[in-house]
Amino acid sequence: MSVKKRILSGMRPTGSLHLGNYHGALANWVGMQDAYDCFFFIADWHALTTDYENTGNMSVFAHNMMIDWLSAGLSPEKSTLFVQSSVLEHAELFLLLSMITPVPWLERNPTYKDQIIQLDNKDLSTFGFLGYPVLMASDIIIYKAHGVPVGLDQVPHVEITREIARRFNYLYGNVFPEPEAVLTESSKILGLDRRKMSKSYQNTILLSEKPEDIRAKVSTMVTDPDRARRKDPGNPDICNVFEFHKLYSPADTVADIGARCRTAAVGCVECKKMMAERLVEALAPVRDKRQYYEARPELVREIIESGNQKARTAARQTMEEVRAAVFHKTI
Amino acid sequence: MSVKKRILSGMRPTGSLHLGNYHGALANWVGMQDAYDCFFFIADWHALTTDYENTGNMSVFAHNMMIDWLSAGLSPEKSTLFVQSSVLEHAELFLLLSMITPVPWLERNPTYKDQIIQLDNKDLSTFGFLGYPVLMASDIIIYKAHGVPVGLDQVPHVEITREIARRFNYLYGNVFPEPEAVLTESSKILGLDRRKMSKSYQNTILLSEKPEDIRAKVSTMVTDPDRARRKDPGNPDICNVFEFHKLYSPADTVADIGARCRTAAVGCVECKKMMAERLVEALAPVRDKRQYYEARPELVREIIESGNQKARTAARQTMEEVRAAVFHKTI
Repeated sequence: MSVKKRILSGMRPTGSLHLGNYHGALANWVGMQDAYDCFFFIADWHALTTDYENTGNMSVFAHNMMIDWLSAGLSPEKSTLFVQSSVLEHAELFLLLSMITPVPWLERNPTYKDQIIQLDNKDLSTFGFLGYPVLMASDIIIYKAHGVPVGLDQVPHVEITREIARRFNYLYGNVFPEPEAVLTESSKILGLDRRKMSKSYQNTILLSEKPEDIRAKVSTMVTDPDRARRKDPGNPDICNVFEFHKLYSPADTVADIGARCRTAAVGCVECKKMMAERLVEALAPVRDKRQYYEARPELVREIIESGNQKARTAARQTMEEVRAAVFHKTI
Repeated sequence: MSVKKRILSGMRPTGSLHLGNYHGALANWVGMQDAYDCFFFIADWHALTTDYENTGNMSVFAHNMMIDWLSAGLSPEKSTLFVQSSVLEHAELFLLLSMITPVPWLERNPTYKDQIIQLDNKDLSTFGFLGYPVLMASDIIIYKAHGVPVGLDQVPHVEITREIARRFNYLYGNVFPEPEAVLTESSKILGLDRRKMSKSYQNTILLSEKPEDIRAKVSTMVTDPDRARRKDPGNPDICNVFEFHKLYSPADTVADIGARCRTAAVGCVECKKMMAERLVEALAPVRDKRQYYEARPELVREIIESGNQKARTAARQTMEEVRAAVFHKTI
């Protein structure tokens, strides 16, 4: 009998995962698997809120995302790993919650207007985009999750989920616990060009990157922009390569590199080469697992289907209660 | 192999059906069962768009509505009679269509603002109320219905369904036929007080009304308001009782009553009594069938479940195509 608290989180299948995704979220997920009853899902319906015009690769991306997850250490034995669109009950709860969610709550959502401005190359005037916090609320509360691992910027999303859950409970009786935001720390690694690591900036290193590509990409990384010449001393505190060292090199190497950078005893070329080798080494087991799963697509499909089944069982149990509460049917 | 065109329509389970419902829609449905492949559903999810705060009787109303339908002549052997919330795929398609439906299409919907004004005792600022044309579109196109029987005032609803279907087909490939509005004529019978017959006006005669209640209610009906005294001649053209005669009395009686009213040869009391007897007679077989089904709740549940199953099979077939089109999954 599990007394672990349940957490839930998801990722949109929009392409191969990179180190930004890994250190921003996935590494936290991997680390939470023993302490929590974890539900992690591939948010393909969510991806439609912004990418409904561009769905050609969605099912391939979903399959590959599961391979990325498994390679990075998510375990189907520990956690429930599933695909959102395979659990129809999310859509049913979305529909029911839409009936009780005031439009002004959605319009007030801070990320709503932000994203419309940021993604100005897309037509986001859709009903589904306006309603994505309702879908997110359904995803979370259908599993009666106690917590949602989020960064500080996503706390308002959890707040709107709590409000929707509270309104449901007020109207129909106490079915849903209000989930808490579980604040997670994420490292500050940036892309090759020191901007946020993002597919759209083409500045990523993928989890599935080959050794020769890792070396080539690391060699192009922007370091301390004030260190113009080899003989100039550098400032590791503002160097992204040094951030990578902190993640991938042993502590004494990190200390040593930092000191030698400040005194110009090591140059950026050499420093990057050292870091690249550590990164190649660190990603080797990920790459090995990836090769294993890539050679076994049927096994990946089975893992997904078995996760879907686990999720469905939990979702259906909640929906029995929900239908009884809303329509006063006897269970 | 059926080559009949498929039509679809629904009713919200908000209480016992009255003669306004019958002559406004249900009588047409009964008459269409041989010529069309009919899907008729109890729109319990739709009822939530306006009645989410008041769901206590919804499942009882749904059961009773099926009894009303069966009593009035809908046949589970001819038509697919089902409950909307029992076919989860409607919610799935609602979710997918929400992603591609522009909010301005919904805000422009003429009945949207009308209803917010008319139903000003309810808080209709909800996301679900804004999106009910999306849910309606899902209901219709998930069965690839060719037609939707509607009155003239509902043609805009079918138009928005056509637009949503067209947009889906444009984005993802040609899955949905565009349904046509099938204009139906409905008789102009009014309530006891000459206003629209409506539960909220307490001016109805129910399909399930007992003979003594029919007689009592008919005796209170407002006739030609200008006919103040028995000896005044009346104007049957503006008399609601005369409209009832046209529906329930034989043609020669109608002609005779009309002539005698205009010459004050018949009074309103006598005229109503004659009409009440015809109405009691006409509703007798409906009442008999109702007694049969009321005594057999398990049979009614079986009829509903078997209709749900037929609907699910058809909806699932469409959704296989829809998922393949949206996510480029192979079927």
